[in-house]
Amino acid sequence: MSAPKYVYFFEEGDGTMKELLGGKGAGLAEMMRAGLPVPQGFIITTQACLRFYEAQRSFPDGLDAQVEQAMLQLEGRVGTRFGDPSDPLLVSVRSGARVSMPGMMDTILNLGLNDATVAGLATLTQNERFAWDAYRRFIMMFSSVVLNVDKDRFEELIEERKHELGISTDPEIDAGSWKALVTRFKAIVREHAGRDFPQDVREQLHLAIQAVFDSWNSKRAIDYRRFNKIPDDWGTAVSVVQMVFGNMGDDSGTGVAFTRDPNTGENVLFGEYLVNAQGEDVVAGIRTPQKIADLERSQPAIYRQFQEIAHRLERHYKEMQDLEFTVERGKLFMLQTRTGKRSAEAAVKIAIDLVNEGLIDKRTAVGRVNASSLDQLFHARIDTDARVEVAAHGLNASPGAATGQVVFTADDAVAWNEAGKPTILVRVETTPDDVHGMIASRGILTAKGGATSHAAVVARGMGKPCVAGCDALQIDRRSKTASLNGTALHEGDWLTIDGSTGNVMLGRLPLIEAPSTLPPWLATFLSWADDVRRMQVWANADTPEDARKARELGAQGIGLCRTEHMFMQQERLPIVQQMILANTPEARAEALAKLLPFQREDFVGILEAMAGYPVTIRLLDPPLHEFLPSLEELLVETTELRLTTGVETHEYRAKEAMLKRVQQLHEQNPMLGLRVCRLGILYPEIYAMQVRAIFEAACELKERGVDARPEVMIPGVGTPEEMRSTYDAAKAVADAVLSAQTTTLAYHIGTMVELPRACVVADELAQTAQFFSFGTNDLTQTTYGYSRDDAEAGFIPTYLEKKILKDDPFQVLDRRGVGSLMREAVRLGRDARAELKIGICGEHGGEPSSVAFCDTLGLDYVSCSPYRVPIARLAAAQATLGTLT
Amino acid sequence: MSAPKYVYFFEEGDGTMKELLGGKGAGLAEMMRAGLPVPQGFIITTQACLRFYEAQRSFPDGLDAQVEQAMLQLEGRVGTRFGDPSDPLLVSVRSGARVSMPGMMDTILNLGLNDATVAGLATLTQNERFAWDAYRRFIMMFSSVVLNVDKDRFEELIEERKHELGISTDPEIDAGSWKALVTRFKAIVREHAGRDFPQDVREQLHLAIQAVFDSWNSKRAIDYRRFNKIPDDWGTAVSVVQMVFGNMGDDSGTGVAFTRDPNTGENVLFGEYLVNAQGEDVVAGIRTPQKIADLERSQPAIYRQFQEIAHRLERHYKEMQDLEFTVERGKLFMLQTRTGKRSAEAAVKIAIDLVNEGLIDKRTAVGRVNASSLDQLFHARIDTDARVEVAAHGLNASPGAATGQVVFTADDAVAWNEAGKPTILVRVETTPDDVHGMIASRGILTAKGGATSHAAVVARGMGKPCVAGCDALQIDRRSKTASLNGTALHEGDWLTIDGSTGNVMLGRLPLIEAPSTLPPWLATFLSWADDVRRMQVWANADTPEDARKARELGAQGIGLCRTEHMFMQQERLPIVQQMILANTPEARAEALAKLLPFQREDFVGILEAMAGYPVTIRLLDPPLHEFLPSLEELLVETTELRLTTGVETHEYRAKEAMLKRVQQLHEQNPMLGLRVCRLGILYPEIYAMQVRAIFEAACELKERGVDARPEVMIPGVGTPEEMRSTYDAAKAVADAVLSAQTTTLAYHIGTMVELPRACVVADELAQTAQFFSFGTNDLTQTTYGYSRDDAEAGFIPTYLEKKILKDDPFQVLDRRGVGSLMREAVRLGRDARAELKIGICGEHGGEPSSVAFCDTLGLDYVSCSPYRVPIARLAAAQATLGTLT
Repeated sequence: MSAPKYVYFFEEGDGTMKELLGGKGAGLAEMMRAGLPVPQGFIITTQACLRFYEAQRSFPDGLDAQVEQAMLQLEGRVGTRFGDPSDPLLVSVRSGARVSMPGMMDTILNLGLNDATVAGLATLTQNERFAWDAYRRFIMMFSSVVLNVDKDRFEELIEERKHELGISTDPEIDAGSWKALVTRFKAIVREHAGRDFPQDVREQLHLAIQAVFDSWNSKRAIDYRRFNKIPDDWGTAVSVVQMVFGNMGDDSGTGVAFTRDPNTGENVLFGEYLVNAQGEDVVAGIRTPQKIADLERSQPAIYRQFQEIAHRLERHYKEMQDLEFTVERGKLFMLQTRTGKRSAEAAVKIAIDLVNEGLIDKRTAVGRVNASSLDQLFHARIDTDARVEVAAHGLNASPGAATGQVVFTADDAVAWNEAGKPTILVRVETTPDDVHGMIASRGILTAKGGATSHAAVVARGMGKPCVAGCDALQIDRRSKTASLNGTALHEGDWLTIDGSTGNVMLGRLPLIEAPSTLPPWLATFLSWADDVRRMQVWANADTPEDARKARELGAQGIGLCRTEHMFMQQERLPIVQQMILANTPEARAEALAKLLPFQREDFVGILEAMAGYPVTIRLLDPPLHEFLPSLEELLVETTELRLTTGVETHEYRAKEAMLKRVQQLHEQNPMLGLRVCRLGILYPEIYAMQVRAIFEAACELKERGVDARPEVMIPGVGTPEEMRSTYDAAKAVADAVLSAQTTTLAYHIGTMVELPRACVVADELAQTAQFFSFGTNDLTQTTYGYSRDDAEAGFIPTYLEKKILKDDPFQVLDRRGVGSLMREAVRLGRDARAELKIGICGEHGGEPSSVAFCDTLGLDYVSCSPYRVPIARLAAAQATLGTLT
Repeated sequence: MSAPKYVYFFEEGDGTMKELLGGKGAGLAEMMRAGLPVPQGFIITTQACLRFYEAQRSFPDGLDAQVEQAMLQLEGRVGTRFGDPSDPLLVSVRSGARVSMPGMMDTILNLGLNDATVAGLATLTQNERFAWDAYRRFIMMFSSVVLNVDKDRFEELIEERKHELGISTDPEIDAGSWKALVTRFKAIVREHAGRDFPQDVREQLHLAIQAVFDSWNSKRAIDYRRFNKIPDDWGTAVSVVQMVFGNMGDDSGTGVAFTRDPNTGENVLFGEYLVNAQGEDVVAGIRTPQKIADLERSQPAIYRQFQEIAHRLERHYKEMQDLEFTVERGKLFMLQTRTGKRSAEAAVKIAIDLVNEGLIDKRTAVGRVNASSLDQLFHARIDTDARVEVAAHGLNASPGAATGQVVFTADDAVAWNEAGKPTILVRVETTPDDVHGMIASRGILTAKGGATSHAAVVARGMGKPCVAGCDALQIDRRSKTASLNGTALHEGDWLTIDGSTGNVMLGRLPLIEAPSTLPPWLATFLSWADDVRRMQVWANADTPEDARKARELGAQGIGLCRTEHMFMQQERLPIVQQMILANTPEARAEALAKLLPFQREDFVGILEAMAGYPVTIRLLDPPLHEFLPSLEELLVETTELRLTTGVETHEYRAKEAMLKRVQQLHEQNPMLGLRVCRLGILYPEIYAMQVRAIFEAACELKERGVDARPEVMIPGVGTPEEMRSTYDAAKAVADAVLSAQTTTLAYHIGTMVELPRACVVADELAQTAQFFSFGTNDLTQTTYGYSRDDAEAGFIPTYLEKKILKDDPFQVLDRRGVGSLMREAVRLGRDARAELKIGICGEHGGEPSSVAFCDTLGLDYVSCSPYRVPIARLAAAQATLGTLT
């Protein structure tokens, strides 16, 4: 069996061959075909890399021979010979994966130098300093990458030499000093690598190729892939390219450039150029490069040639390019072209411009913008110019950045806020008792709790930044102090949190506020997405403000209105508690009667804000004890009172009574306890009150001519009997209200599908339910048996690290497990009721790849938080286009 | 469309027509066919009853006409006419469902009497007293059943009359008094029913039939059906039968009899006979009847005739019969034959005897015994002669009865036990700190917690009776007193609990102890079952004692050995805590090294006890905080110390440190948290220690020539990566131990399938796992989203009452939901690995209908607690036979 073709010269490939040749290799091949000035070279395929790993990190059969053969050809093309002391061929050896992984893998320049060829290079170039500088660079790079010698060892010697010479920069070092340093460098290699620096150029090449292959599985490369969701089994290609030198004098240089501004999208060349330097000098940031535009003055011919090439490449690829080039003694060489990374704003604007320039059509433009990146546009963020030092890291529980002064209690937050001081509320965890303080704060930081902790859920609901579960935070409630990774925090200290990243920073950092409406360019762009997509996009919103915001951002309905957040408002909580603590049905009824007008008012607001669009209102969902004070705090407080004021006081008795009730309602696993429709079945009067409020609100609006479209959603149904019984009860109340008002109104009653059993019996549920909405947060919890609160702050990080999980299933919908159950539910549900409307209202509804999956399931809509509506609009369009899968 | 045939005369039916004619009707038909002396009569079908309900409780078309027609025929056969004042036909109207529901539905005797016919009856029988007695009985029965008049109203008048007459029993009341009472009875009917007592005999009949139909849906009937798992949609038949009178003098009488002793199974006529009485008098227990055998002396001819009939019926049905009969003036009438209810012991012994008598074969015998009933044989129970007053009711958490003196702390239990006093440990709930007290007690009673609470699980493991979650119990820990439904309980008070029923009784009740081994007759019977069944029966056992017991009871392997119960033993708990509290891997390793010999010793014991059989050892499963003291108690204790001794004491600091760690490990939903294989992946050294202990134990036994067969079970796997990673780690340790001992040993590594996701990805799991064992407790929790602890003591009772659930899914496997997932897992698993061994080790493995379902799934074995092994052996056989589905 003969070996596959592992080696391709540039002209043998083209731009479509990224999979085999890597992105960089395919780009070089494409430029070569286009007749652009590219150095000679060849590419070792990604397949060779994969075979290398299959063979336990040894070269696959035939690779050495093909490389040997290619080097002979390269010698012929360039006209010099590899290892020839009189006129040596030097090459660069670089990695190149299918997609760019900047800085993640290794590169070696100037390969082919040794004690003999360095002299030849000096003679040939008549530049001894250049030759020895090149050689010492090669030794440093090769030794650190291939032989694993710490680069600092070399840097120390250079610093020492400069000190001896009384100079401060590398360019001041002369040829003799470099020569002397090379001798000492080789001694260091011998000492630290246990071998001599290889003088055989073929050995150099072999080792360098192997090192590039190895760098595919370096820790930083693996981490980068995990973060960017790049498969581990792609492998990297290796390019071996004739060296060209930007450091051969002032008519030489090296540069990087984008064909458009990657921050703003403006159509201007954007980049940097460094005279008399090699590429690594630009990256290293030792010298300050000039702007690319300045090249127009210093080397106008080169600039014009480059500008023309950039324009050609952009028109060729119909996309903004990221270019690398070198000028060797007045001659331009293109070293790389690839699609340029850019900000979300630039991505949208460039896509629009490319359409206006006639290069691409609107559908293509829609596919060009990373949907997730739009998230950046809708939250305050820390000014990119600010110097950021991260003091601690927690869970990115609610996005956006906030800065304020530390307070430790909700009451303090209110007081400071009234005094006009911005605060960050710092708590071990929050309870309903803290909500007024959360409202009064700019952001929330907690030591405990995950992405569905009270703090996280409420903060997200409020649109406030929150970092939760920050392990490094220890709070001393009594002294109102805390320790953050060892630094003491006092009340009033400034703190900045970034809920998008989970970072916590000491001090007050400058913030850039989010735009309050959809910018016109984004509105235009999203309208193109709307023309493409099949699925509707709805929003999860609990308040009229959120609903209005969602509508502005393009939501076509409310997929989830959580009524419990209405229960948690400060003035209502005491009534809710009165209802829960009621000992008799009469007392409960009295409390519910007080809540009715509040709920009706809530629903009037939200139904009016969404007039003409469906509003899906979920009846009460969480376990009742979520509305009561914390059991742990009550235990401490009653014990304190017992030992101080005694058990005879009114205060003790009241606390003790509350403790008893909280203990009674306490559950081992509240996520799996008395909640969802179980509440509505055990306490039918609660759901009855809510349904009454919904339909009284709708009637009131109808009288005012407002087109209210309520949909009643029963949470957590697992059996057809639950569905039937809650459906009947809700319908009875709704119809009673409507007939008392002698009016009619189209409405539906459906269920949130959030339990595995609901998926399995979906056909039976659909006999009654008029719509399904997948609650994928809970469905993920029960399918995996993970409590989100415990898992995301607990074992999931380790699971991701150990590759037990590819993604956090609460962030990215698990297609294989949860997705299978959803598919089954869709099939069974539609079999039983062909017109069944099906959506998703879990947080996955705003995550692009999950949106794409929902499209393949044939869902009618996705629903997500208001600020994710633009993301979902774009993702849904990309799903239709097939560019997002 | 003509009406179906709703009415069948006895000779038109036969014994196979129970579905249509009810059990009683089919029995009468069969006796009629066999030429036995049966009164004339006909049956209204169950179909008529179902149509009655379909038509909103009105008679279906055609029924009235068919009944009218049948009454005409009946008149012709009997020779008297219905409503004829001179010679009236009287009938009984009785219910009769497909299976007997004794006392649950209504019966009316003497129908056809009114003011006119009563006189005729008196003349005809020349017995005025008899006639008026019959009439007053009819009024009482009819009025209470049909007209809903409280029977006590009538009884009061009778008592009053007897008082006036200075007599004490009904038979002393003369004709005149009955006549006078009838007048007053009719006044009562008018007053309480708002109508006159119906004189039209056809109206009487119509109303009586309707009342029988109605009684199918009386509350007590519904409750009975729910308890006995009888479908609601069977309906009842109605028999209309010529009256025969046992109360026409001393040559008359009425009796009930079993063809064999229903308590012991002995082959003797067993029953009671009441001279000069109607059937209801026997049931009412007003007079003490004579033994059936005494009839031999008083009416030898009748006795011989009855004996011969009983024998014939038993041979005809090949089954022990429950007979009702009446003797009217020396003539025997058979009123009923049906399969007789019996104790478990009698059931087995009768089945064996019938085989020995050649009436049935062994396979038939195996199908004759209710598998669940065998449970009675293996637990202490309260003496049936004892007078039992239930003081409160809790969850039947661990079966069997216990009596002892109340103690409130584990230490007190130990002290009292050492002083030779039996105790019942009474706690709010138990924690690992209470285990020594549980060991020292006869039984455990808790105020909180469900069937998987610590108390329940540990008590079941110990085989100790436990009643958990007894709401009516309030404990004052400090004063060592409690209140049980309002009665004060002090330390030392006697209390009896029945963990089979959940009943709690004040005082000391006499108990009957369980047999310590399998009685020979049961062993014989079960060996017949073993010859029939396809599935193996294994046991869940955590100790050598349990394993030996299981083996004695017929277990063919251990399907689940829970290693955590070994961790909870008193001398080990401190080491386990040391392991959990370890701050460094070294400290953890040190604690694990101390645990290793304990675990090895455990495994030596259990593997030896099961030599030659597989022993499936589950690696550590529960969240670590289950091994630590209670968070709530620590909060109270640290607060107390802070306010009394202050924060500077050693004691405070130690408690505070423990509190911190417990808080750290505390989870919102521990059932869905850091447990199962997640523990083994985050703390691989724990699983490594356990696997080492297993294989060192196996090697030690092998050296001694013992055939140890360990199987390693990884709990809670949800992804193939978890399976692969824990498999690899366990295999590495196992193989290292074996190769160090230079020995080989066949073993398998498999997984407990207990998450919905595991079912969905079972094919991927089976790539690695060598066996599956369904953990249906957890699988039920996650499929339904129910926490068993919270649900069984919480909303499930209401769900059963409201018919949202048919059964508690933790008791009876949910075939539709959980079962679908299991079926999918079996299919996928066997597709991927044809030889995959699959069992079940959830508690459903010992519940007969669940065992039958497992048989249809094609499982290889069921595993259950040792004392349920006989039940499972029988159920598995019945599943194979198809008599249990």
